[in-house]
Amino acid sequence: MTTTAAAYGASSATAPLEPLTIERRAVGPHDVRIDIHFCGICHSDIHTVRGDWRPQQYPLVPGHEIVGTVAEVGAEVTGFQPGDQVGVGCMVNSCGECEHCRAGEEQFCVPGAVFTYGSPDKDGTLTQGGYATGIVVTEGFVVRIPEGLALDAAAPLLCAGITTYSPLKRWGAGPGKRVGVIGLGGLGHMAVKIAKAMGAEVVVLSQSLSKKDDGLRLGASDYRATSDKTTFKELAASLDLIINTVSATLPMDRYLGLLKIDGALVNVGLPSEPMAVNAFSLTHARRSLSGSLIGGIRETQEMLDFCAEHGITADIELIDAAQINEAWERVLNSDVRYRFVIDTATLDAAD
Amino acid sequence: MTTTAAAYGASSATAPLEPLTIERRAVGPHDVRIDIHFCGICHSDIHTVRGDWRPQQYPLVPGHEIVGTVAEVGAEVTGFQPGDQVGVGCMVNSCGECEHCRAGEEQFCVPGAVFTYGSPDKDGTLTQGGYATGIVVTEGFVVRIPEGLALDAAAPLLCAGITTYSPLKRWGAGPGKRVGVIGLGGLGHMAVKIAKAMGAEVVVLSQSLSKKDDGLRLGASDYRATSDKTTFKELAASLDLIINTVSATLPMDRYLGLLKIDGALVNVGLPSEPMAVNAFSLTHARRSLSGSLIGGIRETQEMLDFCAEHGITADIELIDAAQINEAWERVLNSDVRYRFVIDTATLDAAD
Repeated sequence: MTTTAAAYGASSATAPLEPLTIERRAVGPHDVRIDIHFCGICHSDIHTVRGDWRPQQYPLVPGHEIVGTVAEVGAEVTGFQPGDQVGVGCMVNSCGECEHCRAGEEQFCVPGAVFTYGSPDKDGTLTQGGYATGIVVTEGFVVRIPEGLALDAAAPLLCAGITTYSPLKRWGAGPGKRVGVIGLGGLGHMAVKIAKAMGAEVVVLSQSLSKKDDGLRLGASDYRATSDKTTFKELAASLDLIINTVSATLPMDRYLGLLKIDGALVNVGLPSEPMAVNAFSLTHARRSLSGSLIGGIRETQEMLDFCAEHGITADIELIDAAQINEAWERVLNSDVRYRFVIDTATLDAAD
Repeated sequence: MTTTAAAYGASSATAPLEPLTIERRAVGPHDVRIDIHFCGICHSDIHTVRGDWRPQQYPLVPGHEIVGTVAEVGAEVTGFQPGDQVGVGCMVNSCGECEHCRAGEEQFCVPGAVFTYGSPDKDGTLTQGGYATGIVVTEGFVVRIPEGLALDAAAPLLCAGITTYSPLKRWGAGPGKRVGVIGLGGLGHMAVKIAKAMGAEVVVLSQSLSKKDDGLRLGASDYRATSDKTTFKELAASLDLIINTVSATLPMDRYLGLLKIDGALVNVGLPSEPMAVNAFSLTHARRSLSGSLIGGIRETQEMLDFCAEHGITADIELIDAAQINEAWERVLNSDVRYRFVIDTATLDAAD
């Protein structure tokens, strides 16, 4: 039997978000129905709904930093039971058969993962995201929120957390390593916390020093303004890894110059303009310019367990549904420390 | 006692090369004096002498693919004796004390390696390269040419060989891996031979199919024209590693699209214009754009031993000193299969 959920979505690329009622599919044998309690607001929500990356179908309900409680499970679900605290991130399904799915890296699914919103689902419908009171997801794409993590502040781990954890782990952030984080926003503040917890020394590279106190409190040992030219001289060849969380087009050669021999600069943001890179910046120190895309489901669970062990959640501003449009404006103005999270209990009231 | 050597060099950035006599330092306790028999012509020789990368001092004798016989050794030299077949590559000294020198990666020496020509030597003089009948080099920068390698065809291994061997090894070329090689010139033809010998499957990506027969003969299993648009569709996401030997500015996103998940495109050429890279090309498949610079002395010896074991040398065109200027023109026109090597016995006659 299908269920309905109160939601907040957009009826076009330009319309403000407004209350909607959406239908969720009947719970199949492998499905988990989740009562959503909290959903983070990710910059990608805005890019997607506004059609910045590609045209979309509407109405569209965004949201892929979902935390809630299991309400119902399908007949063949063994890993979850009603009452479990769970999360859903950027993906809700994938082919399950290609080499990448088999390797637990569903984000690289060859036919393409089913993303949490705006993506054609296996039944042909369009997926609708987590700015809603409920969702039905196949069990393989549901993760467990460990005891001890505040549910609201854990929501951003499902995208901002895994997006930074995955490259930090892959590129070896840990004791003895110096990690630069470009930008102290939703992704950046998670990168600082996670890199620090992994044992690395963290340097924040931000346009100005306006968030310096926050950066140091979050775990950075150094915080530099990139508007200050001495930053690039003083930190030259001093970092093992840089995580670039900024979507603006940056002078990449200057940042690459901060890397030691064999250092890597990994983009997790997606600037819309091409990056210009001088081959010398790479060759003369065997550096790499790379990119990373969220993480697989297995690694997302690993990240959540890591965060629970280290007491890491996001710094959030909890909002009501009625504040979503205002929050989006503030995200666009980088005016949030450091993630908005929607209390979905306020969605019913808004409808 | 200093010695003199017949040489071929340029008196300015624009002058043709001409016969010169140069002085080599007296053999110090750790020095090896080498009678040069052959020296390869590398495109870098032209870029350097012509001041394409930075201004130079003249007269300047280029050449860093040097092969010869030990003529004399210093009192404290234990690793070499007169008559040994030896080589000298792109570097003739380094600080010996920084972390990179200690790690055997003298190309990344922090104060800077002493390059074989056009570089300030430790005694304050300017280094002069291998288009000459003799050279004096500190023993730590002399490598042994194993038995069984033809000396003339081995000369290009000292730069083209190590420049391609080092990234192929570092980025894991081997059985089960598909390696793309962009450009079938001096570097490219070595990359094909070495990658094949490492056990990888090799695909050459060349502007046209004009050298296809050569590419297949050298060890490639596939040879594609990049002027043919179907190449980029048919080979999409099929390569583990690409070695880019081309100095021209290429449409990097198209080439990055040929890489599998976690694939790397490694530049060993040095385009003078910045490369434009779309972040999506990297992020959506966790790809890397990297660069690699020659290799250390220890790895150069390892490469020579590997080449001897697999019977690998360069395909060369042996020339007399009097043909050097013409050869340079032909290098600029990519009209060489695949490396010019100077028979330095003809230098005395030219003087």
